[in-house]
Amino acid sequence: MANASSCRILIFFFLLYNTLFLTSTHQYHPLDPLTPSELSRVRTIVKGSNPSPGFNLTFHYVGLDEPDKQTILSWILDPCTKKPPRRALVNTRAGKKTREIVVDLSKNSVISNRVYDGDGYPMLTFEEQIAANKLAMSYAPFTASISKRGLKLEEVVCESFTIGWYGEKAGNNRVVRVMCYYLDGTVNLYMRPIEGITLTVDLDTMKIMKYYDRLMVPVPKAEGTEYRGSEQKPPFVQSLKAITVLQPEGPSFSIDGNTVRWVNWVFHLGFDMRAGQVISLASIYDLDKDEYRRVLYRAYISELFVPYMDLTEEWYYRTFFDTGEYGFGLCAVPLEPLRDCPANAVFMDGYFTGQDGTPGTIPNVFCIFERHAGDVIWRHTESGIPGRVVREVRPEVSLVVRMVSAVGNYDYIVDWEFKQSGTIKFTVGLTGLLEVRGSIYTHTDQIQEEVYGTLLAENTMGAHHDHFLIYHLDLDVDGDANSFVKSTLQTTRVSNTISPRKSYWTVVRETAKTESNARIQLGSKPAELLVVNPNKKTKVGNPVGYRLIPGSVAGSILSDDDYAQIRGAFSKYHVWVTPYNKSEKWAGGLYADQSQGDDNLAIWSLRNREIENTDIVLWYTLGFHHVPCQEDFPLMPTLSGGFELRPANFFEHNPVLKIKPPKDVMWTNCSSSMKA
Amino acid sequence: MANASSCRILIFFFLLYNTLFLTSTHQYHPLDPLTPSELSRVRTIVKGSNPSPGFNLTFHYVGLDEPDKQTILSWILDPCTKKPPRRALVNTRAGKKTREIVVDLSKNSVISNRVYDGDGYPMLTFEEQIAANKLAMSYAPFTASISKRGLKLEEVVCESFTIGWYGEKAGNNRVVRVMCYYLDGTVNLYMRPIEGITLTVDLDTMKIMKYYDRLMVPVPKAEGTEYRGSEQKPPFVQSLKAITVLQPEGPSFSIDGNTVRWVNWVFHLGFDMRAGQVISLASIYDLDKDEYRRVLYRAYISELFVPYMDLTEEWYYRTFFDTGEYGFGLCAVPLEPLRDCPANAVFMDGYFTGQDGTPGTIPNVFCIFERHAGDVIWRHTESGIPGRVVREVRPEVSLVVRMVSAVGNYDYIVDWEFKQSGTIKFTVGLTGLLEVRGSIYTHTDQIQEEVYGTLLAENTMGAHHDHFLIYHLDLDVDGDANSFVKSTLQTTRVSNTISPRKSYWTVVRETAKTESNARIQLGSKPAELLVVNPNKKTKVGNPVGYRLIPGSVAGSILSDDDYAQIRGAFSKYHVWVTPYNKSEKWAGGLYADQSQGDDNLAIWSLRNREIENTDIVLWYTLGFHHVPCQEDFPLMPTLSGGFELRPANFFEHNPVLKIKPPKDVMWTNCSSSMKA
Repeated sequence: MANASSCRILIFFFLLYNTLFLTSTHQYHPLDPLTPSELSRVRTIVKGSNPSPGFNLTFHYVGLDEPDKQTILSWILDPCTKKPPRRALVNTRAGKKTREIVVDLSKNSVISNRVYDGDGYPMLTFEEQIAANKLAMSYAPFTASISKRGLKLEEVVCESFTIGWYGEKAGNNRVVRVMCYYLDGTVNLYMRPIEGITLTVDLDTMKIMKYYDRLMVPVPKAEGTEYRGSEQKPPFVQSLKAITVLQPEGPSFSIDGNTVRWVNWVFHLGFDMRAGQVISLASIYDLDKDEYRRVLYRAYISELFVPYMDLTEEWYYRTFFDTGEYGFGLCAVPLEPLRDCPANAVFMDGYFTGQDGTPGTIPNVFCIFERHAGDVIWRHTESGIPGRVVREVRPEVSLVVRMVSAVGNYDYIVDWEFKQSGTIKFTVGLTGLLEVRGSIYTHTDQIQEEVYGTLLAENTMGAHHDHFLIYHLDLDVDGDANSFVKSTLQTTRVSNTISPRKSYWTVVRETAKTESNARIQLGSKPAELLVVNPNKKTKVGNPVGYRLIPGSVAGSILSDDDYAQIRGAFSKYHVWVTPYNKSEKWAGGLYADQSQGDDNLAIWSLRNREIENTDIVLWYTLGFHHVPCQEDFPLMPTLSGGFELRPANFFEHNPVLKIKPPKDVMWTNCSSSMKA
Repeated sequence: MANASSCRILIFFFLLYNTLFLTSTHQYHPLDPLTPSELSRVRTIVKGSNPSPGFNLTFHYVGLDEPDKQTILSWILDPCTKKPPRRALVNTRAGKKTREIVVDLSKNSVISNRVYDGDGYPMLTFEEQIAANKLAMSYAPFTASISKRGLKLEEVVCESFTIGWYGEKAGNNRVVRVMCYYLDGTVNLYMRPIEGITLTVDLDTMKIMKYYDRLMVPVPKAEGTEYRGSEQKPPFVQSLKAITVLQPEGPSFSIDGNTVRWVNWVFHLGFDMRAGQVISLASIYDLDKDEYRRVLYRAYISELFVPYMDLTEEWYYRTFFDTGEYGFGLCAVPLEPLRDCPANAVFMDGYFTGQDGTPGTIPNVFCIFERHAGDVIWRHTESGIPGRVVREVRPEVSLVVRMVSAVGNYDYIVDWEFKQSGTIKFTVGLTGLLEVRGSIYTHTDQIQEEVYGTLLAENTMGAHHDHFLIYHLDLDVDGDANSFVKSTLQTTRVSNTISPRKSYWTVVRETAKTESNARIQLGSKPAELLVVNPNKKTKVGNPVGYRLIPGSVAGSILSDDDYAQIRGAFSKYHVWVTPYNKSEKWAGGLYADQSQGDDNLAIWSLRNREIENTDIVLWYTLGFHHVPCQEDFPLMPTLSGGFELRPANFFEHNPVLKIKPPKDVMWTNCSSSMKA
C-alpha cells in the first residue's frame, strides 16, 4: 500500500549539498546514481531553463538517464574510452502539466523537454502529501466530524491515498483521498482508523474537492496496539542471550564507489528514488575460463501492486502501485545497525530529490553483509569404500544487499543475495502494519455479512489484500543474445514390451519464439524455466543458462476486465519475457498514478515480438495473497517469499568445488563486553 | 536413493555398551529413544526367547514401542503418575520369515511375537548389504567382466540397490541388485559407474541368483570427479575471511535428556533408526495465558520416495524408499563441528541396532543451534506522525535442529527450525552426489535417442529423478480435537450498482468432513490450508489454528497404475489428512522393501474416515523434480526446499510483540585467533 507522506520526514535528511558534496566526477561509473551535487545542478539547470513560465514547478522524479546499453557494454570492454555523458531524467509538474525533461550535465543544459499529455501522473512527492494531509485539520466540516465523534483533533493524523482508476474518461484531476487515524495513546495510527470520513484533495491546486462523512464506526481502542519496546509492560518472554557475527579480519567484500566485489561476484549497486535497489552488470568469475562472465545487465523491482479486496466506499479504490505512485526508493528508510542488519554489515547512503528539486539523503539506505546462517553449500559423507570414510563439508556464506522500504503502513525488507555457487536469491519480507478497517463488530458471532477481512481485535477488521512485486531481470547470460526455454516435464506411457515400468517423465524443451510463448502461470504443470545463451555451449554441448526457481505461485485472481487488473495486468502471469527495450522499465506504467493501463507490460507484450536469440528481459511476479490473522495485530511478524536464479549448465561443473571453508575463529579467548 | 551399505561403516561406531551405558532409567521421558543399555537388553531378551529356533536371527529394526498417545498425554498432565512401561518394537528375520516382536523392558520379556506374512520386507541392514557387495569380488563371471573391460578389480567397489516391485505376484525373494563403480584415482565412485553388469543377490541366503553382463560402456574418467579439498589443485577461488557466530554467554536453550527448551518453545527430540529426527510434544508458551499450549504431538519424515526416470535394464527399478528400505536414521552421519553446523551448535548422539542386535552409536547425529542469519522478525518505521519518527526493529533468532542423512550418494540436510513467532519451518537441503549412468556419448550432438538425463561430462549421464519427502505432522493445535479447513480464495464478480470495482476475492472456508475432502494437489487454485481447533476460539471468535504454508508444488507425475506409483502413491497429493491411528506411521508402508502398495497412506485413506473435530494427522509431501545440470557434477551445490507451519489466530495477537532484541556484543575488544 499506501501512503508516502508517512515514508519519512523529508526535512530531517536534507543536505547542505553544495558544501558537502563537491566530489570529483572523475571516478564515476556511468551507471552511478546522480550524486547530491549532480542533483543540485539538475535543479539549477531545470529551474534556469524555466520550462513552465509563470507556474510553480515541482519535481516528481529525478534519476539517472541511463546511457544506452550498447554504450555501456562498449565502455565496459574498453574503460579507457570516453565515458558516456551524464544525463538526468526529470519529471516535473507545473500548470497541471507533466513534463519529461532530459538534462545533460556535461553541457549544463536541458537537451529535451516535452509535455506528457497521456493519462496517468508521475510519482507523488512527500511534500504534497503532507500538505494534503494538513488541509483536513483546518477544514470546518472535518473538525466538526471529529468533534461529533468525541475525538480530540490534536490526536488525529491523516494520510494521503492514491485513488486508482475506475473507468473515468481522460481529464480527471490529479487527486488523492485523505483518510485519518487517531493516536491518543498509541503511535500505531494504522490500527485506529476513523472510518467514514473522506476528503478528496486536488494535488495540483491543493484544494479539497469533495468531502463526506458517510458513517460512524467506533474507533478501535488504543489498548494493545502499541509496538514500541519502551512502552511494553511485563510480563515479558524470556530474553535471548547475546548473539552476534564475528569477522575479526573484516569483511570479504570491497566497495569501490558503487561497485561491489565479493569472492567471485562483481556488480554495481545503485539507488533510484522510484525502484530502490538497482543491480547492474552482475558478473561471476569463472575459475576455468579465468574470466568474469555476464549474468545480469540490470535488475530491480519494477512495480509493487497492492490491491485490497474491500468494496466499501472508503476502501474499494485501494489498489496501490507502490513503486510508481509512492516511490519504492523514496519510501526507503535508514537501516538501524545491529537490528535491521547484523553486526558485520556495511552501510551505503542514497540520494533523492525533494519537491523543490533540492537533493536529500537517506543515510544507511542499503546494508551489505555476509550472511553466515549455518547453512551448508555442499557436503558428502562417503562410506561406500570399504575401510574408509570420506567426509567433506563446506559451510555456506553468501552476500546480502538489503533495503527496507516502508511504504506507509507496510515495511518491505528486500534482499538480493549472491551465492558463491552462482545463485542469486531474491527475498522479500513483509512486515509492519496492516491496513485495518474500523468495524462495528467485536465478535465474529455478530457477523452476518461480507466483511472483506478477518476480525483481528474488537472493531478491527484486517482487510484481505495481495502484494505483487514484479522484478525486471535483464539477464545477459554470457552475452546479450539469449533465449527463453520452457522445459516441460511430460509423463510418458511405456508399453510393457519396452520396460516393466508403465511410465516415466521426460523433458520437452520449447524455446519461446515470441512473447506470447513466454507468458506463464506457474503451478499447473511442472516445468523448468531457463534463460539460455543459444550461442554458447559447454564442452559437452549443453547451452549455457540460468534457471528460474520460483517460490510462491500466487497470482492475481481479479477479473481481467477489472480496472485495477487492467492497470496491474502483469500480476496475472508469473513470468513474462520481452525483447530488451530501454523505454520498457515500469511494468505498471511509467505514469502509474491514475493510469488507465495503456502503457504497461501487458500492453507492450501484446505486440508479440520475437524473443529468440536476442537481448531479452525476464519479468517475474512474486505474489502474496494475504488473509490477515490475529498474529498480524498490532504489527506483523515478517512473512517472507522469494525466488532464485540458479546457474544451469552455465559452468562446466560445480563452481564451488574448490572453495575452502572460512578459517575457524577461536573466540574462546575473547573478552567481549555487552550492553543491553 | 540409494545404497545403505555405504551409509556408514558400522563397526566404527559400535559401543562397549555394557560398560559405558549403565545409566539410570529413573530420569527417562516415556518418549525417549531406547538407550544403548536398553537396546542391549532387547537383544538379550529377544535372543533368549529364541523366536526362530534353528535359524540365524538378524535384527532389522529396533525402536521404542511408543506408549499410547492418551497414556502419554495423561502422564504429561500429571508427571507424578507412574510412567508407562518401556517397550521395544523389533523386526527380525530368520528362516526367511519377518517377525514383529514386542519386548517389555520392565518385565524383561517378549510380550508379543508374530510372523508377518504379507508382502514387503523390513529395512535392510548395513551388514547384509556389505556382504552382498562383497560377493561380486570373488564371483568368477564378474571378475571376468571386470578384466574384459581392462579394469583393476582392487579399484572396484559395489553397492546394493533395492529392486522395488513390478507386478510380480507374492513369493518373490528378498533380493538386491548389486551394481559396481570404479575408483582408480577418485573417491567419487558414483561418477564412475561400470554400466551393464548386474548381480542379483538373495539377502536371506546371501547367494548370487542372477548375473548378467549386458553391455559395455566406457567408464567415465576420474579426472574432474574428485571433491576432497586435499586433492584440489590451484587455481582456487579467493578465500573468505574468517566468520563465526559468537554467543559469549552461551546458548539460550537448554537440553535436559531429550527435552529441549528455548525461549518460548519446549519439545522432545528423539532419534529413530528409521525416521531419523522425531519431534514430539512441541508446545509454545503463551504469555497472555501464562501457559504452554500444544502444537505438535509428533512430527517426523515418514518416507522419502526417489523414483528415477530411466528405463534401461540397469535403471528402471530405481524407485527407492529411503526411509523404509535403507533407514533415514540409520544413514544419518556424524555432523562435523564448524562445517555441518555453526560454532554455537550443541551436538547429540543417536543409537541404533546392528544386524546382530548389538547397539551402535552415531556421534553428533543432531546439532542444535541458534540461527542468527541477519533476518528481522518484525519492524516498522513510522513517519506519518508529524514531527516525529518511530522506528522499532527486532532481529530474528531461531532454533534449528539439524540431521544429515547420507543415503548412499545423496546427502539430505534436514532442518527443523523453531521461531519465536510460533512458526515451525521445515527445510531439506539436497546435496552430495548424483546417480549417473555411464554413457557412450561425449557430446550432446551425438544424441539421437531418449537418454533419460543430462550429459554432465563425457560419458556421464545425470539421470532425471524426483524426491518426495512426506512429513507426518500430528498437529494437536491447542488440544487433540482438530479440523482441517481449506480456505479457497474465490473471485467474485461485482455488479456496477454495488461498486466501481468489477471483482474482488473472498475466502470460502470449507471444513473437511472426511479424508477425501483433504487430499490436495497444490498449485492450481489459491487456498489457505489450516488445522484448527474448532472448540477453542480467540476472544473475538476466530478458531485457533495453524496454517500450512507450502513451498514447491512438485508432485509425482508418474501414472497412477505404475508400480512404483502404487507403492509411493502418497506423492500424488501434497496434502493428506487422516484420523490419528497409532499404526499408520509409514506413508510408504511399514514393510516398504518390495512392497506391493497395499499398506500405505493412499490405501488407509481410501476408507474415507471422518476427520472433523477429532484427533487428526496432517501429511505433507515436499517434492523436487530434478533435471541434473553440469553444476551438479561432480557433486551438487545444495538445493533447498521446505514449508512452514505458522500460527493463524492461534494467539490473540503478535506473540513476539514484546520480545527484546538480544544484547549487543561489543567484540571490537576481542583478540581472537584463527586457524586455516
